[in-house]
Amino acid sequence: MLKITQAERDAVYKTIFNRRDVRAEFKPDTIPDDVLKRILTAAHHAPSVGFMQPWDFVIVRSEQTKQKLKQGFIQANAEAETLFEGERKAQYSALKLEGILEAPIGICVTCDRTRTGPVVLGRTTNLDMDLYSSVCAVQNLWLAARAENIGVGWVSILHDEVLHQTLGIPEHIVPIAYLCLGYVSKFYDQPELEKRGWLKRQSLSSIIHEGQWQAKSHK
Amino acid sequence: MLKITQAERDAVYKTIFNRRDVRAEFKPDTIPDDVLKRILTAAHHAPSVGFMQPWDFVIVRSEQTKQKLKQGFIQANAEAETLFEGERKAQYSALKLEGILEAPIGICVTCDRTRTGPVVLGRTTNLDMDLYSSVCAVQNLWLAARAENIGVGWVSILHDEVLHQTLGIPEHIVPIAYLCLGYVSKFYDQPELEKRGWLKRQSLSSIIHEGQWQAKSHK
Repeated sequence: MLKITQAERDAVYKTIFNRRDVRAEFKPDTIPDDVLKRILTAAHHAPSVGFMQPWDFVIVRSEQTKQKLKQGFIQANAEAETLFEGERKAQYSALKLEGILEAPIGICVTCDRTRTGPVVLGRTTNLDMDLYSSVCAVQNLWLAARAENIGVGWVSILHDEVLHQTLGIPEHIVPIAYLCLGYVSKFYDQPELEKRGWLKRQSLSSIIHEGQWQAKSHK
Repeated sequence: MLKITQAERDAVYKTIFNRRDVRAEFKPDTIPDDVLKRILTAAHHAPSVGFMQPWDFVIVRSEQTKQKLKQGFIQANAEAETLFEGERKAQYSALKLEGILEAPIGICVTCDRTRTGPVVLGRTTNLDMDLYSSVCAVQNLWLAARAENIGVGWVSILHDEVLHQTLGIPEHIVPIAYLCLGYVSKFYDQPELEKRGWLKRQSLSSIIHEGQWQAKSHK
């Protein structure tokens, strides 16, 4: 049996604990093709329901495409800002929340809900399992990128139709994530929102329930 | 800046490529508390939208609880079987699709859609971002477990209400995954469904699109 050694295990934890959502620290340096291919191969080896592999990866490099997506972000972010109030709104507006133009590469990860036909093993009870498979691919991609010392930022403030139109994605394909990738000037030692006081890290004990769900307080 | 070395990078890829969905190979050996805590800590360091950390982990060890969940699987699987026909149905019925009773530990990963209040940074455009955050926690958990040489199996053929009732999970909390964890007699060298000829691995080139979506054939 293929064993993972102590040193290898430590490397996995180091990568998991030092993965960050990057917005402001992207450098323009090109990501070599072989590095990008390794990262995408790792994403492609995510678990998928019924081995459906519902994901696709649309690679964005063109300045013009990035400009369109940036406009989409600006619009969606203006809508988002109206949902916050007072001090929280000022705090929100001061945050940089994406690096669409700065990152040399964007990757749209999608989910093809029709792939391999109408009945998918393991997707008979919970129809969202295919979406979850594509999210697992996102997380594999993110960790592989961190292992390559490449930063990733997930831009979630963007309407699906902007991705559909800008990238020519067919109607029946669901965009799951738009990810910005690039080498970085630094990785924060904590999640940026934790560092900036937006929210605190919850204690591990507050999210673990032994045997049955227990009422816990989350602050 | 905290660099990942070549050896560490190789360890991450080794773990990603050798992660499997385990059903039949669980051994009864106890998972030590400190190992389980490391795995859950890794899950808790997944990315989450707006640093919302919407996940909880319900740990199942009791034989009685496992028996109830197994009954839930048997029922959902009987429903699933009716969706397959002919040779495919025979092939489906011959597969072992879960190890609920054999695995020493079960973990239900959930999503609390109300955590941190009604407005969540980054979850204003796509309301499913919180579900996706919990899926990222599943994938972190899965890779950390593999790094500990522990197998994980995701049981998706199980109705949410069985998890709600059996584990006492409140109505507003969404079960994302029921995972079986345990040491294993072996890890397959390929995904089991690939090995058994259920579906083939797609080529990387068929899922990568340069610049714009391209029509590709998926077989």
